[in-house]
Amino acid sequence: MSASVSPSASRVGVWLIGARGSVATTVVAGCAAVTAGLHPPTGLVTETPMFADSGLPALSSLVFGGHDTVDCPLPKRAEALAAGGVLPPGLPTATRAELAAADAEIRPGGPLPGDTRDAQELIAAFASDIQDFIRRCGLTRAVVVNVASTEPAPTGAAPTGAALPPSSLYAAAALRAGCPYVNFTPSTGLNHPALAPLLTSTDLPFAGRDGKTGQTLLRSVLGPMFSQRALAVRAWSGTNLLGGGDGAALADPAAAAAKNAGKERVLTDTLGTPPEGEVHIDDVPALGDWKTAWDHIAFDGFLGTRMILQTIWQGCDSSLAAPLVLDLARLTARAHEAGLSGPLGELGFFFKDPVGDGPSALGEQYAALGRFAERLRGADARRLEDRPGRLGGRGGADRSEEQW
Amino acid sequence: MSASVSPSASRVGVWLIGARGSVATTVVAGCAAVTAGLHPPTGLVTETPMFADSGLPALSSLVFGGHDTVDCPLPKRAEALAAGGVLPPGLPTATRAELAAADAEIRPGGPLPGDTRDAQELIAAFASDIQDFIRRCGLTRAVVVNVASTEPAPTGAAPTGAALPPSSLYAAAALRAGCPYVNFTPSTGLNHPALAPLLTSTDLPFAGRDGKTGQTLLRSVLGPMFSQRALAVRAWSGTNLLGGGDGAALADPAAAAAKNAGKERVLTDTLGTPPEGEVHIDDVPALGDWKTAWDHIAFDGFLGTRMILQTIWQGCDSSLAAPLVLDLARLTARAHEAGLSGPLGELGFFFKDPVGDGPSALGEQYAALGRFAERLRGADARRLEDRPGRLGGRGGADRSEEQW
Amino acid sequence: MSASVSPSASRVGVWLIGARGSVATTVVAGCAAVTAGLHPPTGLVTETPMFADSGLPALSSLVFGGHDTVDCPLPKRAEALAAGGVLPPGLPTATRAELAAADAEIRPGGPLPGDTRDAQELIAAFASDIQDFIRRCGLTRAVVVNVASTEPAPTGAAPTGAALPPSSLYAAAALRAGCPYVNFTPSTGLNHPALAPLLTSTDLPFAGRDGKTGQTLLRSVLGPMFSQRALAVRAWSGTNLLGGGDGAALADPAAAAAKNAGKERVLTDTLGTPPEGEVHIDDVPALGDWKTAWDHIAFDGFLGTRMILQTIWQGCDSSLAAPLVLDLARLTARAHEAGLSGPLGELGFFFKDPVGDGPSALGEQYAALGRFAERLRGADARRLEDRPGRLGGRGGADRSEEQW
Amino acid sequence: MSASVSPSASRVGVWLIGARGSVATTVVAGCAAVTAGLHPPTGLVTETPMFADSGLPALSSLVFGGHDTVDCPLPKRAEALAAGGVLPPGLPTATRAELAAADAEIRPGGPLPGDTRDAQELIAAFASDIQDFIRRCGLTRAVVVNVASTEPAPTGAAPTGAALPPSSLYAAAALRAGCPYVNFTPSTGLNHPALAPLLTSTDLPFAGRDGKTGQTLLRSVLGPMFSQRALAVRAWSGTNLLGGGDGAALADPAAAAAKNAGKERVLTDTLGTPPEGEVHIDDVPALGDWKTAWDHIAFDGFLGTRMILQTIWQGCDSSLAAPLVLDLARLTARAHEAGLSGPLGELGFFFKDPVGDGPSALGEQYAALGRFAERLRGADARRLEDRPGRLGGRGGADRSEEQW
Repeated sequence: MSASVSPSASRVGVWLIGARGSVATTVVAGCAAVTAGLHPPTGLVTETPMFADSGLPALSSLVFGGHDTVDCPLPKRAEALAAGGVLPPGLPTATRAELAAADAEIRPGGPLPGDTRDAQELIAAFASDIQDFIRRCGLTRAVVVNVASTEPAPTGAAPTGAALPPSSLYAAAALRAGCPYVNFTPSTGLNHPALAPLLTSTDLPFAGRDGKTGQTLLRSVLGPMFSQRALAVRAWSGTNLLGGGDGAALADPAAAAAKNAGKERVLTDTLGTPPEGEVHIDDVPALGDWKTAWDHIAFDGFLGTRMILQTIWQGCDSSLAAPLVLDLARLTARAHEAGLSGPLGELGFFFKDPVGDGPSALGEQYAALGRFAERLRGADARRLEDRPGRLGGRGGADRSEEQW
Repeated sequence: MSASVSPSASRVGVWLIGARGSVATTVVAGCAAVTAGLHPPTGLVTETPMFADSGLPALSSLVFGGHDTVDCPLPKRAEALAAGGVLPPGLPTATRAELAAADAEIRPGGPLPGDTRDAQELIAAFASDIQDFIRRCGLTRAVVVNVASTEPAPTGAAPTGAALPPSSLYAAAALRAGCPYVNFTPSTGLNHPALAPLLTSTDLPFAGRDGKTGQTLLRSVLGPMFSQRALAVRAWSGTNLLGGGDGAALADPAAAAAKNAGKERVLTDTLGTPPEGEVHIDDVPALGDWKTAWDHIAFDGFLGTRMILQTIWQGCDSSLAAPLVLDLARLTARAHEAGLSGPLGELGFFFKDPVGDGPSALGEQYAALGRFAERLRGADARRLEDRPGRLGGRGGADRSEEQW
Repeated sequence: MSASVSPSASRVGVWLIGARGSVATTVVAGCAAVTAGLHPPTGLVTETPMFADSGLPALSSLVFGGHDTVDCPLPKRAEALAAGGVLPPGLPTATRAELAAADAEIRPGGPLPGDTRDAQELIAAFASDIQDFIRRCGLTRAVVVNVASTEPAPTGAAPTGAALPPSSLYAAAALRAGCPYVNFTPSTGLNHPALAPLLTSTDLPFAGRDGKTGQTLLRSVLGPMFSQRALAVRAWSGTNLLGGGDGAALADPAAAAAKNAGKERVLTDTLGTPPEGEVHIDDVPALGDWKTAWDHIAFDGFLGTRMILQTIWQGCDSSLAAPLVLDLARLTARAHEAGLSGPLGELGFFFKDPVGDGPSALGEQYAALGRFAERLRGADARRLEDRPGRLGGRGGADRSEEQW
Repeated sequence: MSASVSPSASRVGVWLIGARGSVATTVVAGCAAVTAGLHPPTGLVTETPMFADSGLPALSSLVFGGHDTVDCPLPKRAEALAAGGVLPPGLPTATRAELAAADAEIRPGGPLPGDTRDAQELIAAFASDIQDFIRRCGLTRAVVVNVASTEPAPTGAAPTGAALPPSSLYAAAALRAGCPYVNFTPSTGLNHPALAPLLTSTDLPFAGRDGKTGQTLLRSVLGPMFSQRALAVRAWSGTNLLGGGDGAALADPAAAAAKNAGKERVLTDTLGTPPEGEVHIDDVPALGDWKTAWDHIAFDGFLGTRMILQTIWQGCDSSLAAPLVLDLARLTARAHEAGLSGPLGELGFFFKDPVGDGPSALGEQYAALGRFAERLRGADARRLEDRPGRLGGRGGADRSEEQW
């Protein structure tokens, strides 16, 4: 930070992969609306007292940009979301300036059909886009958050040299550009064998995978309830109906498989063994950006008496995801500032399938998040050196040796 | 305990108020079934690893008796419960001996219409019944657990000298007999102004009120979830359908008021403010011992987007309550042995409206229970003297001064 | 009708009691929107092929006015409904002219506190308002539809001379003005003992009570299903959550009683006997104009096996009611034109508690409606003289003898 | 009927394919229980006033037998069903004699692995079993009802000469033995191209396919409701959870495809066009013989307002199916007696995918059933010659020419 920039003017970049999607649009418009006092900070965990004095960047300091492969301008996208009830009626107009500003910072993603660049070239190009953003906007730092539609899960054991999926290209580019990385989707991202050396050597913090916004959020409190009460869950079945882009993406069984892996992990972890039952994800375009999740839990009580709990969650996916994206951007930016590196297991509260080791019960994840907030509070003067759980030594990586 | 009884033969009494009801019958038959290995200990929290080595009395050491105002013998009651699907088909036959043994230890409750005894005489008679039970069965100690149908809530501010409701008579008798007391119902029990002096002076432990077996159990995990995610709950509405005796009892608005007070406490505590919405309790005799609870939670997400969670809980009330009653009997007996006295706030995990101070979120209550288990483990050689939260000094009460 | 007005220009008035409420606003804006081709005629039964050639007045021929006791102009009310998601975002602007035109035809209702007019004076004033509307707008005829908030149910058996509730004043005024009357609410309307002579003598058609828009609509198809399959319904319980004006009005137990009477009638009629179970109506302001109805139906199958059906209906009350109001206005206007008089039992399809004799199963009501459509088709040249079910002789009333 | 057999002694056989399954066991035990007056005839449509004097065979006149490939005796199977709550606790004992009698009339089905008989040999063997049953028991007539587990749907367009699936072998055997045939499952049965000549020439009545016992029953009343109210269904999604044998059979996507075809037909027929949405069938062994069906219906109201109806159906499959099987056996036996032949479209009330032409709305199907009952009432003295909808001329088939 140069001497000419006062701390209060410090600005932090949020580079969104999938920057023209519903979630990204809601992130940008919502950050502006809350900053302007048009809406209370509902859903923003980082605005609760837990994070007072934790040194998080202010919402007003966030600057948005990103990659996308589509062209629809953010202000127009916001109008469509308002028509669908996702954004409040007047919000696109009230935040038009901020939407346009973010739109001006979006660069073409890829690879699109016909693109002949190889992985290294794509990574370099993406990293360059991000570095230009930081430079152009005079940012103290930037974080990269993947909010793009879910990719198909890789089939079989991909060899190390296999083609990287786009989410992994962007993830590698984030680290190449010196930015913390957050994977809010179930796509591969950093979780690719070819990127393993990078993960163990990087001095950047990262977090993921797959934001916990509905059915799995519920499961992370209901699973522990059954376990703590010593009730025997026999079968846990679920159906998700969702429209929007994610519905179509997840109608692909391979993409659904990626998502369901995270959903099942929370049950296996909290119940001890995986119960019977399947999870369906249906594309229902008529629902637009709204999703409905029905869960049916058959459990045994005392003496084997059979009982049933059912839950129906009706939510707007973008509204559920957007505040978590803002939370994660602020938390990873602050972690970066505090010198943390490697997987941020303490952010498991936000994810279906968290990096690192950590509890699966939401209550315990919340407690871990509280301890993380506490540590950030004490990290102003010095770097956090004694943090446990770090995969590799800090700063030890010789970047010239990195493949990606 | 006579010298001829080895410590391993130490037996603990469980004196049930409402000893011929569905819950009590399930407690007696279920304890026998689990002891005999006919069923796994599903639903028994005290059989989980958390309580290994905590010194709890074995299930096989429990001896049952109690008060009731009805005559139906326990073996016959068990047959009726099996016909209604509450007990497994063969269980009444398999546990006939234990049911008959418990039935032989049931004494008439009261006061019935025409009974001219005053409160002091009734308390003395009930206490005498309990002490006879301890003596006759050669018990090391006994605990008293109220599982009777819910009484109407007292109307208005009852003066100190007012007539005690039956639940309070039994509660006073428990302490008079030197027994820990557990109020598993929303009835008044020890929570009567006239008993306040007794509570502050007793050297006995006690716990309550109102076992958390369904809708409130769910609320104690869902309320914290909304709060931790900074989601704004706008309205929380609920309807309970239940048959059996409790349905009829709670169809009385005054009795329902007592129950609902506990239900609302958990929301106010975990959400910070009480949301809109009502709770209905309907008597639906067609449901027998089964109950259904529907909850409808309207909440705001980011930017005020309105979302909804609904839950439907279908359970068998007796099956849900019985293992908790066994847990509580074991825990309070052990607390008594360890010299604990006063309100056992650490048992809030089991109650809608716990005595003492303590958290309302189930996860935190579970953690508190774990700490309690830990303390019991260390309590074998010495008394637990430094336990916080004790209302009054141990043993300081001069019993001759007590009114009740 | 003056000679200068061609038949194709024939215009029909719709006089709404409660003309500034949510339903009325949706009726006016929606009629304009469908007429203009902005929306398909979803929900309008009279736009289905069943009514082709039945001679109904065109939607474009309807002219709106009415009584109300509040002042909020219709265009402003429409904006509020759009903000709440009841009307599509652009609709208030697109239909501003029609909303303003209708607003100009709204006259003050009553009696408001301090009004010293007696019932006869109020009826005369209201009838005069309606006749002025017909004259001023050059209408061929007008129908009066009550869409005001539900009144408390009258307590006890009101003597013939007792004060008429407002809904009855308006109903009497409708007949006094020579207009068919439709009671879309559970309020008393024409169903008051003091109006009985009027009902038997009038040569005007009338219909009601209480539009069937949600839970009762479902019950009118599910009740017959259980009955036809010889399944024994043991208990039918329901809870309705609704905000808006109706939620508050129905939180009054007396008003709810009126509504619930209609709800129970359909079950008693279709099942043969009334099942166990209650119906709750909760005021939940957070839901705005949306309502949720949960029904829990416990039924016995073969050999007494207990089974359960649950339904959850989430709808927007105004959107459900408005097309039915348009349907009823068109149908009763056409019935008037065709010379029909007395209770229109054939319109039971639309009501919870229909006038006249008729089936309660929706399928049979639909068949009756189809026969009604058929009769209207044949009624162009002549009056429908042989229609069964007429309460009194046509035209025989000597109006000078009428009390109201 | 020989002169030596009085009409009151006339006995009618019911030959069940899958005679040792849950449905068949419930049919046999239930018929005995209702005949003995142990249970009211809940669920039996043929015991309602609609069928008084229709000449149906009495329940007490029914004699049971059938084919199955498993060995578990019916009395033992009944005990297992009672343990699972499908049959009332005491019923296996109370109906032991009838269960044993039916068990003695069960013959081995097939083909089992290793069986070298070709289709003609198998059909001949099965037909011979049925004819032996009729002769041995002195039956007036017998009907064949398929209640076996669902077969996989045939893949692709099977050529005429292709191997017949087992359900088609049994169906051909039924006709060969001169018995009416009812297909209560979605399996192929008579619906195989190779059996087409048989269908057009037979003088026997037949009915099917796929008993309507849960989700589709609901859809057949809810679909018409939306249609009659001109509400636009956008998406109709459903998930079925079921254990028992059917759950496992339908977990096979090919078998599920057969079942779902029937489920979708009712929506397409009643709504006009098929809505968006999928149907899932999950095998959840923990549910035993119970099934849960969740439906989520997104529909548009007036002005496109989006609304939702959800239904949850929790039933016991065997209890739902068994009375319908008895109804169908009695109705087809009586139709045979009355000389009816060909597809009995009037029985569409009972099926997801009815033979013949007929309505899909339950109410209309019920009306058609009522007309059928009326016709049977008048058929005692003479044959029903003028019945419409007959596929081929009666008695015209020269059986020696039949291929099957």
